[in-house]
Amino acid sequence: MKLAILFGGASYEHEISIVSAITVKGKLSHFDLSFIFCDQDHRFYLVEAAKMKATTFSRSQHLKMPQLTLVKGGFEQRGLFGAKMHTMPVLNLIHGGDGEDGSIAALFDFYGVSFIGPRKEASMLSFDKHYTKWFAASMGVQTLPYEVITRETIKTITTPYPFIIKPSCLGSSIGVSIVREASELAYALDVAFEYDNVLLIEPFISGVKEYNLAGYGSRGEITYSIVEEPQKAEFLDFEKKYLDFSRSAKVEEAAVSDTLVAQLRDTFKTLYLPLFEGALIRCDFFEIDGQVYLNEINPIPGSMANYLFEDFQGAISTLLGSLPQKKEISIQYDYIHSISQAKGK
Amino acid sequence: MKLAILFGGASYEHEISIVSAITVKGKLSHFDLSFIFCDQDHRFYLVEAAKMKATTFSRSQHLKMPQLTLVKGGFEQRGLFGAKMHTMPVLNLIHGGDGEDGSIAALFDFYGVSFIGPRKEASMLSFDKHYTKWFAASMGVQTLPYEVITRETIKTITTPYPFIIKPSCLGSSIGVSIVREASELAYALDVAFEYDNVLLIEPFISGVKEYNLAGYGSRGEITYSIVEEPQKAEFLDFEKKYLDFSRSAKVEEAAVSDTLVAQLRDTFKTLYLPLFEGALIRCDFFEIDGQVYLNEINPIPGSMANYLFEDFQGAISTLLGSLPQKKEISIQYDYIHSISQAKGK
Repeated sequence: MKLAILFGGASYEHEISIVSAITVKGKLSHFDLSFIFCDQDHRFYLVEAAKMKATTFSRSQHLKMPQLTLVKGGFEQRGLFGAKMHTMPVLNLIHGGDGEDGSIAALFDFYGVSFIGPRKEASMLSFDKHYTKWFAASMGVQTLPYEVITRETIKTITTPYPFIIKPSCLGSSIGVSIVREASELAYALDVAFEYDNVLLIEPFISGVKEYNLAGYGSRGEITYSIVEEPQKAEFLDFEKKYLDFSRSAKVEEAAVSDTLVAQLRDTFKTLYLPLFEGALIRCDFFEIDGQVYLNEINPIPGSMANYLFEDFQGAISTLLGSLPQKKEISIQYDYIHSISQAKGK
Repeated sequence: MKLAILFGGASYEHEISIVSAITVKGKLSHFDLSFIFCDQDHRFYLVEAAKMKATTFSRSQHLKMPQLTLVKGGFEQRGLFGAKMHTMPVLNLIHGGDGEDGSIAALFDFYGVSFIGPRKEASMLSFDKHYTKWFAASMGVQTLPYEVITRETIKTITTPYPFIIKPSCLGSSIGVSIVREASELAYALDVAFEYDNVLLIEPFISGVKEYNLAGYGSRGEITYSIVEEPQKAEFLDFEKKYLDFSRSAKVEEAAVSDTLVAQLRDTFKTLYLPLFEGALIRCDFFEIDGQVYLNEINPIPGSMANYLFEDFQGAISTLLGSLPQKKEISIQYDYIHSISQAKGK
């Protein structure tokens, strides 16, 4: 089965996307894989399997590889003797900006490229943590209380210490700080505003139970991964997360009650259908006093959360067989015809 | 000043976009204009000014015109003797799908094409009326109460008659009905579900005062249009709206109090900044008992609401001079370098 893995992107998560792609390559041996790299200037390159090493990109060796142009129906590779089209479906593995903010989804939808990944709307609602709050609330899913701040509204913070500051639009813990007291605030704000103009503040609950659950839908039915209790040193910083994106060893299922598993799955399903169809996502939850709270939705989880699935290749293959179709609009020019007839033209 | 007008799109509003583009052409005589048509198959064509007539497109005459490919920095026109680049800024005048749903914004942002129009996020929040409700609420702007329904939740409607049913993601009154009693419901639902899977239901308030206000921002300062009280036969159906998109004659300012004008402007500003920077938008408001309610945000109003501005050419020219710049991300490969050094590679 043919599949192209798209990775890179003009994103703070560019490097972890490379790591993620290399990891996923190792987990999809049954597929006829191609690799498409999006560099920080938004140019696409076709990368040979043998060159799929992190240093290929950090040393700019991709610049010597065939460049691809996105056109109607797929990627075009121009050569001296005409152009070759690459029309296989694409696994969108660009984490963060470009991949998760709806840009790639918009491009692929526009050009009719079929792909695994969140669609435009799903991307926007999960990429911006503020919108995720709105979305969760509208679906009746609980999240932690929060405040949204900008440089102009810093003084209005009312959340008591300790709290967490997060850039609204970044994943992988980039720019995130725990603020325990007033003296730590200025630095934490500086760090976070480096990455985004809008920040989210949430209470920091020491020792809160965290559970991750991944899954994907096919024709309205969801297949769930095992539930994982992520290891954490309070929370993951970027370097730890970086290594996290190269995870390939299957993890142990968390020792949780059937009731909690059912609660987590119900909440996952409420969020997933129908918005996330076409994507394999990971939802990160908190459990507080027997209640499930959504922490965040990862619509393109690190290394596709392969380590949470019994049959990861089967998951990708099932998804490929049931990607959502865009509704076609047929334009008949009825109004222009009727108006030009009325005018006698 | 060079400017390309982009119009068409795979949208139910394709035809009114053509009408809109022809109208705007007539209002921007000081500009060095080009015309780019996006057909229903998402192919771009360069259209000569002399061919800017509705029948050009309804008779498929554009198929004989030069085709353009969107690449880094602009539109590429390939010819026998190499390729020519069109790098002028673009006025996004595709109404409805593609233009207002964030697709064109995502494409242009991705390829570094500078454009007048709503950015990706602004598009998404204004295109889907449901998200507009969330957005308005978060900004403290009042809207009418509403219910969101799908085919599965029809039976749960609690809004008393009469009410309005609207497809969540369409403009130009397409698929909209007033439902006065139970016997009219089934047909109205059928019509609306023809266009969208998600509908909004709002109370219908007979004779409610409606006011439109357009404006645009430049470096944080907003220039407002006059306030218009739109003529309406209860509400505009598609054919009336169609003609509405060809409006070019300056309208009369509504006879409203200074207090109301100030209220409308304040509300406009609250919604506009900073999300809609780069766009000229029209907000449609209701006034009920001295309170302003947002009805909808038109991020690409019909014929750019030229008829509401004293100096429409000045408006476009000011906007062109202050388009938002996307933050550049520079990738240094620090993590890959440090990891490959640690591994001794």
